[in-house]
Amino acid sequence: MSNPKEQNAISPSRQEDYPEWYQQVVKAADMAENAPVRGCMVIKPWGYGIWENIQQQLDKRIKDTGHENAYFPLFIPLSFFEKEAKHVDGFAKECAVVTHHRLEFKDGKLIPAGELEEPLIVRPTSETIIGESFSRWVESYRDLPLLINQWANVVRWEMRPRLFLRTTEFLWQEGHTAHASEPEAVEEALKMHEVYRQFMEEVLAIPVIVGEKSAGERFPGAVSTYTLEAMMQDCKAVQMGTSHYLGQNFAKGSDITFSNQEGNVEFAYTTSWGVSTRMIGAMVMCHSDDDGLKLPPRIAHKQIVILPVVPKPELEAAVYAYAEEVADKLRQCSFHGKPLTVVVDKRQRRGGEKNWEWIKKGIPLRIEVGPRDLESQSVMICRRDRPHKEKAKVDVSSLQEKTGVMLEEIQQGLFETARTFRDNNLHCEIKTLKEMEVFFTPKNQDKPEIHGGFVKAKWCGDPETEKLLDPLKVTIRCLPLEQNHTQGTCILTGRPATLDAIFSKSY
Amino acid sequence: MSNPKEQNAISPSRQEDYPEWYQQVVKAADMAENAPVRGCMVIKPWGYGIWENIQQQLDKRIKDTGHENAYFPLFIPLSFFEKEAKHVDGFAKECAVVTHHRLEFKDGKLIPAGELEEPLIVRPTSETIIGESFSRWVESYRDLPLLINQWANVVRWEMRPRLFLRTTEFLWQEGHTAHASEPEAVEEALKMHEVYRQFMEEVLAIPVIVGEKSAGERFPGAVSTYTLEAMMQDCKAVQMGTSHYLGQNFAKGSDITFSNQEGNVEFAYTTSWGVSTRMIGAMVMCHSDDDGLKLPPRIAHKQIVILPVVPKPELEAAVYAYAEEVADKLRQCSFHGKPLTVVVDKRQRRGGEKNWEWIKKGIPLRIEVGPRDLESQSVMICRRDRPHKEKAKVDVSSLQEKTGVMLEEIQQGLFETARTFRDNNLHCEIKTLKEMEVFFTPKNQDKPEIHGGFVKAKWCGDPETEKLLDPLKVTIRCLPLEQNHTQGTCILTGRPATLDAIFSKSY
Repeated sequence: MSNPKEQNAISPSRQEDYPEWYQQVVKAADMAENAPVRGCMVIKPWGYGIWENIQQQLDKRIKDTGHENAYFPLFIPLSFFEKEAKHVDGFAKECAVVTHHRLEFKDGKLIPAGELEEPLIVRPTSETIIGESFSRWVESYRDLPLLINQWANVVRWEMRPRLFLRTTEFLWQEGHTAHASEPEAVEEALKMHEVYRQFMEEVLAIPVIVGEKSAGERFPGAVSTYTLEAMMQDCKAVQMGTSHYLGQNFAKGSDITFSNQEGNVEFAYTTSWGVSTRMIGAMVMCHSDDDGLKLPPRIAHKQIVILPVVPKPELEAAVYAYAEEVADKLRQCSFHGKPLTVVVDKRQRRGGEKNWEWIKKGIPLRIEVGPRDLESQSVMICRRDRPHKEKAKVDVSSLQEKTGVMLEEIQQGLFETARTFRDNNLHCEIKTLKEMEVFFTPKNQDKPEIHGGFVKAKWCGDPETEKLLDPLKVTIRCLPLEQNHTQGTCILTGRPATLDAIFSKSY
Repeated sequence: MSNPKEQNAISPSRQEDYPEWYQQVVKAADMAENAPVRGCMVIKPWGYGIWENIQQQLDKRIKDTGHENAYFPLFIPLSFFEKEAKHVDGFAKECAVVTHHRLEFKDGKLIPAGELEEPLIVRPTSETIIGESFSRWVESYRDLPLLINQWANVVRWEMRPRLFLRTTEFLWQEGHTAHASEPEAVEEALKMHEVYRQFMEEVLAIPVIVGEKSAGERFPGAVSTYTLEAMMQDCKAVQMGTSHYLGQNFAKGSDITFSNQEGNVEFAYTTSWGVSTRMIGAMVMCHSDDDGLKLPPRIAHKQIVILPVVPKPELEAAVYAYAEEVADKLRQCSFHGKPLTVVVDKRQRRGGEKNWEWIKKGIPLRIEVGPRDLESQSVMICRRDRPHKEKAKVDVSSLQEKTGVMLEEIQQGLFETARTFRDNNLHCEIKTLKEMEVFFTPKNQDKPEIHGGFVKAKWCGDPETEKLLDPLKVTIRCLPLEQNHTQGTCILTGRPATLDAIFSKSY
């Protein structure tokens, strides 16, 4: 008899049904769930802890580059929202609108009452409401640059929601800055784009391609939109974050003017940039496997779990004491400037059940301690990036050093694996629209199937040609900042072209 | 000729017009401003930094008592909101209602479109939406206690807004917990009430009276509401925070049931508790003076400013280098477990202007360094709690120690001053409604005037009698947890009474 195939904790597997696998990973890790409110989600403690960690680490990077946090209203008066024409066009179809300010009983039924003179929009983004403040705060070139960031919730009505990746309400940070010149504002947009890249690669362990969006994919009202594009394990792209150079468009809409050094009044040059809870969805999709979540140690809010193994009740006290001793030792260690976070799981459940729970939650290291380990002053360490039965015996004397090394290896390993996967699925050999069509067409239309990848090819830059991609459900993800500058042929039209572009399906 | 009276930085003074003085202090410190959206505010960096500091320190205390953070939707379906009858009655008059999910151009005008089948309420508080999750999360007594906290924005439509103290949108944390028994849930509500007390007194330096609300002042739907009441410098009360024991009321509305140890199904016992950006307003009102804000060092996000004094341009480099050296020395110091935050103000402005700006911003210590200080390796320190011309010469060698002592003295001093003021204005000698009426009536009705205080007196406990206070614009602030248990006479009715109650005007 052959060995039965070992079963995985998550069903379906990535190969069987990638979108459903994702939902199941999020559920099994107890990160989030769909709320009863259409398109919204409840972020549960295991998911929210990751967001808190993102906030903390990214906030430091944002402050280190000279920005200060502030808070602006949730509601935007309709008239403000209309100030930038492309902006309102871009967001009008997905706005939650507040029209009343109280409820009243009528015929025993509760109904909206107190109709507002002017409807309020629940912010989908805050350019227009922050612009109103900036117009009052900025008078002279001495008030510039104005460098503000906000952590907030925003709402964009979502017809096809997906936990973290696309939800009606989401959490994010949005930076908004005003500058005295175009070069300075462009530099700011690119600087924050680079802050994002470093954070995503160093902390989330997700390799990203940095580039500029084509006109068709630009933020409504922006002059240039810079983006960070990551590849998921199903070869589709996720836009991880964007940074916009807004020119004087919003400054004109909101009347943000300043008197320059020569005493002349000009419109300011503004930027905005944001990343959201969507990054959590990308992190899940990028690193996890058929046993569930895999958390990069630098973003895990709990890095190590200690699982006491108690074969007989009379040994419990000694094993628990040893577990706490090991935990305290580890808590004294620092990992990238913060103390290690360690949980001791003393819940009265079967050891196997607890072990699998932590595997599915993606905790980087699981440490078993039992009576024999106590005797030999050692522990058994299981790494989330290795097969779940693989254990390494480590002496307590070298525990602090070895865990630090292991966590660093896991962090680097996740990044390298993701980068190799991305590079292996980045294709430069596809040269025509026809070839691209074949490449992006699944072999079996009846069954979800992993296919495609990133196609890197020349593009003529004509915005009209982007439509040719619609039937393929493919978009230009970005024009990488790193361009070859070679002469070639446009993959869409066959015309001469020099721009390098990345084409892909996306979330 | 007599010396002209020295002018203060804030006009009007507290005595002249306390409410207007408050607005001017907030403005002069650049903390916040009214937003163009009715009742909302923009929290500027100097104000938001205080909120971040509150969040960080309080969050730690909330986590240390076993709670985890999560995030629930901004929107509550109308049908959920109706689940607890008193709750909906309490909040119906102040709800922002979302009725549409997009905007459409009609006759060139943008109007709400896509009417929702069921209106959504922008959360005024989250008992009902969190209850829905709890009803799914809780099955057995093993799932209890469930201890959740959320940091979020909430909306309560406000007709008479006042920065920080009363705004349509505000920021807060709301804890929500479920328990297997009444005593456990009551203990939880009181435990968090005590966490709040410690935070307010130790960090915000605001003395509070802890007590229970009378029936008339209870949270809509609660069995008991515990409150923390502080006295402002105009002798009025601010409710700083509340903690509610909700009994099984919300569990019944949301169907939060569990099977107990005997296998029987019961409704859970829940609590909720919250504090908000209102605390910032109370902190301003409690500590500031006619020169502006005074920040308690433990809540100041910037504790020390260094003001370089450069009499001649050729000395600038040396003075700046010295200023940075002093700043670095101070940044190595820790104050209550965190490194000191130090700003070096090198802006090219008049020294007097900069000095006054920092006084108005309430920074605890201002340190002047000039060429003579460099020569003598010393600095001049000005404390915000002392007259603004008073300076202390301190040697660099003892700087670290001395600043730590000074900051501690300022922190304690602010608390002691506020406590003495509160105690001096707490009256136990007022025994009848008539005496109370005289006490709470201003001498001059035409001019705002500081009057009143806290009246501590016996009350019979009959909810009907609270109405007698309406003409006085006075309410029962709380029944202090510390009761005398003596027999006396009800101040409102003359009936026999044992309860001690605090009566006051309030914000």
